[in-house]
Amino acid sequence: MNSILENPKEALTQYVSFPSVSADSNYSEGIDGARDFACARLAELGFEINLVETPINPVILATRGDPTWPRLVIYGHYDVQPPDPLDLWSSKPFEAEERSGRLFGRGAADNKGPQIVHMSALYRVLKKNPDLPLHITYLIEGEEEIGSPSFRGFLESHKDSLAGDLLLVSDTGSPGPEQLAVTTGLRGLTALEIRVFGPKQDLHSGVHGGALLNPLQALMQVCSGMHDDQGRVTIPGFYDAVREPKDWERQELEKLPISEEKYADFLGVKKFFSPPGYSPLEAIRFCPTLEFNGIGGGYQGEGSKTVIPAEAFAKITCRLVSDQNEEVIAEKVRQFIVDSCPPSVRIEVTLKGGGNPYVVIPPNKPGSSGMESDLMKKAFSIVENSVQSSFGTTPLYLREGGSIPIIRDLKEVAGLDALMLGLFTNEDNLHAPDESFHLGIFEKAIDTFTNFFEKLTK
Amino acid sequence: MNSILENPKEALTQYVSFPSVSADSNYSEGIDGARDFACARLAELGFEINLVETPINPVILATRGDPTWPRLVIYGHYDVQPPDPLDLWSSKPFEAEERSGRLFGRGAADNKGPQIVHMSALYRVLKKNPDLPLHITYLIEGEEEIGSPSFRGFLESHKDSLAGDLLLVSDTGSPGPEQLAVTTGLRGLTALEIRVFGPKQDLHSGVHGGALLNPLQALMQVCSGMHDDQGRVTIPGFYDAVREPKDWERQELEKLPISEEKYADFLGVKKFFSPPGYSPLEAIRFCPTLEFNGIGGGYQGEGSKTVIPAEAFAKITCRLVSDQNEEVIAEKVRQFIVDSCPPSVRIEVTLKGGGNPYVVIPPNKPGSSGMESDLMKKAFSIVENSVQSSFGTTPLYLREGGSIPIIRDLKEVAGLDALMLGLFTNEDNLHAPDESFHLGIFEKAIDTFTNFFEKLTK
Repeated sequence: MNSILENPKEALTQYVSFPSVSADSNYSEGIDGARDFACARLAELGFEINLVETPINPVILATRGDPTWPRLVIYGHYDVQPPDPLDLWSSKPFEAEERSGRLFGRGAADNKGPQIVHMSALYRVLKKNPDLPLHITYLIEGEEEIGSPSFRGFLESHKDSLAGDLLLVSDTGSPGPEQLAVTTGLRGLTALEIRVFGPKQDLHSGVHGGALLNPLQALMQVCSGMHDDQGRVTIPGFYDAVREPKDWERQELEKLPISEEKYADFLGVKKFFSPPGYSPLEAIRFCPTLEFNGIGGGYQGEGSKTVIPAEAFAKITCRLVSDQNEEVIAEKVRQFIVDSCPPSVRIEVTLKGGGNPYVVIPPNKPGSSGMESDLMKKAFSIVENSVQSSFGTTPLYLREGGSIPIIRDLKEVAGLDALMLGLFTNEDNLHAPDESFHLGIFEKAIDTFTNFFEKLTK
Repeated sequence: MNSILENPKEALTQYVSFPSVSADSNYSEGIDGARDFACARLAELGFEINLVETPINPVILATRGDPTWPRLVIYGHYDVQPPDPLDLWSSKPFEAEERSGRLFGRGAADNKGPQIVHMSALYRVLKKNPDLPLHITYLIEGEEEIGSPSFRGFLESHKDSLAGDLLLVSDTGSPGPEQLAVTTGLRGLTALEIRVFGPKQDLHSGVHGGALLNPLQALMQVCSGMHDDQGRVTIPGFYDAVREPKDWERQELEKLPISEEKYADFLGVKKFFSPPGYSPLEAIRFCPTLEFNGIGGGYQGEGSKTVIPAEAFAKITCRLVSDQNEEVIAEKVRQFIVDSCPPSVRIEVTLKGGGNPYVVIPPNKPGSSGMESDLMKKAFSIVENSVQSSFGTTPLYLREGGSIPIIRDLKEVAGLDALMLGLFTNEDNLHAPDESFHLGIFEKAIDTFTNFFEKLTK
């Protein structure tokens, strides 16, 4: 066995060099390159590779070992977010650059770095012990950053190949380089796009202004009705399926080594705006949201142009918690939009799908069923010790604000619960310019997982 | 006297051949050519020419006659709109081409055609009567299509040269080739830009959503508070200086040969949205507006990106009527925005200036002061008869929704009231590809003004 995984940083640099942006079809070459790179690494590790075609980007399905062994499933994604706005990057997004103990590049943290961690650890373990008695199924998809539209279909049709005792994921966050977290919950997501249509073409706002409803005005009227002035979502039934967090969850969160002042500073806001009854750090984990990700219409250039535009748009995503169902919520939002659209314009709502929220109760925490698989019980215990030994602290057990809809899908379709050890931090600028991955975490996490894979089979 | 004005269509063709685009400095040769052409015609008519330098393009200031005679000031502009998109023109924009009774070319209608009308009529009159006892001051500027940035300064410094009894302008529209209009009012304008700043950089809406106020949400909340659900502007004091139109103005408008159905069809809207108490055709003339010309922020591309953007913007223009003052209104809007901005985001409002509305009450209409100059009283009466005799119909007296700030400036600085006889129509494609000037209007209007200039001195 001779692999670029001998040098994990170099491996990550190469992986980042493929601009695998799934949101934009102009990047299809980068998508192919990243996928080929991941397949090549898994082949080096002795996996048997199966590339499963989907309507957009193929899923890598790879396996090793005897199915009678304990069965671990590992998830990752080879696609990344778009790099724009490009002018805000300090170095080129697809040429990884090391600065101040970090590797900068789009996808360095989300999710290419953590994948290289897993693979490098496996490389070390399998090099010493090629017959490691652990059955591993690797699933690496290429559509995570566009909401995994093909993944559920893939799961349904490959259910039999996904049998396992536990899912391992490192696509979540941790408080910092000295304090990792095991993620015990993820918010769900549902995305919608609104388009408002007014006159048949852009009109002179002097000659015609006053006769008709401006689509920008209509759009803002509809959108601004979705929250009250305390930030709560006003859409009827939106909160129906939201449950209060458990006491131990609030207590665990209090151990988080971050003050509200520091968090405000990090975000660069002078004042938080979380719903009544929830601190900002609670709100991002325990509360659902309805967020505007983009709005636009009319003149976008410098100076002014006196125009009434023909149309306007808004892109919306809702984050969901507890028992909220993405289809139910999407329909409620759609209905609200249609009901509140003024009759003088035409509105189109496109539901873009999403995924349901997910919660796992660690086997050692109040509320766990005790019915978990042996591998799951063992894994949660070993990961705590392995993190302690590499990082000097035990992990916190926290829900996270982000969404990985496929985690819920893997639970629903294949019955898999997830051990999610977070390897990126707030400083990594996920989805933003100057994304980076902390090289200290990178190195220690490889040790952690080397330890983890070794002990899991003992 | 021997002039190209003997053949007005040929004169217009030559005038159009100079690409006098003021918005783009690459066209400076065209600007110079058009200005030289206009000066040469005025010189042939016996005017004394004074080229007044400005920071951008010189103003032509030309005079003839004895200052003790009745004094008429004539305004025009030798600059034109950019011709692009070029591929949508059926013939070359700066090579005038006659088709279906129209002369196609950039500037043919706005404003070169109407200028050739005035000059050709003067040519006919002065040829017969070189000592016509009318003092005429010609003002032709070269920055109208970029908002006349130098014009107010020019007026202030040349106030003494602008003494006069009436301003004559043909840079407004008429309903059609069989029905001209005298424009009795123009809306004012004031422009503002809002920028809302949230977090210091774009954030992941999953990881951080719920803790802070999204700038898009804040922007839409602020903007949607500016209108009620009937379309009236809610900003305190916005309507304070708005006066009801006179009865005769509503009656005059009813004679407009356009149905609401046809107008809706032209705009491509299924339903109008004019303020209570005003029909759509009234609202665009008699009501002020607050219009969003552009909004934007966050992800603008295909698909979705789960981001909370760092900032958002809106571009606003208000159209003003009656006694509304652009600075007062801009300040009221600014104050409203600042007052309604939630404390969790920062807002910046930039006032971009504009101009005040203008109304002239024809001396023969109810509500006129009776204090108008003799020339003004005579001119409004003669123009009605002259139009009647050339076009077979008397002109309608209508306010217009657009803005020509320099008309108000000429009133404020030089005390001049304006007689605005509109010579272009909706079909002329002003500011758009395939601009053209109706040759029937062209010929008849030359007769109208020949008649007008002759009778004005009797």
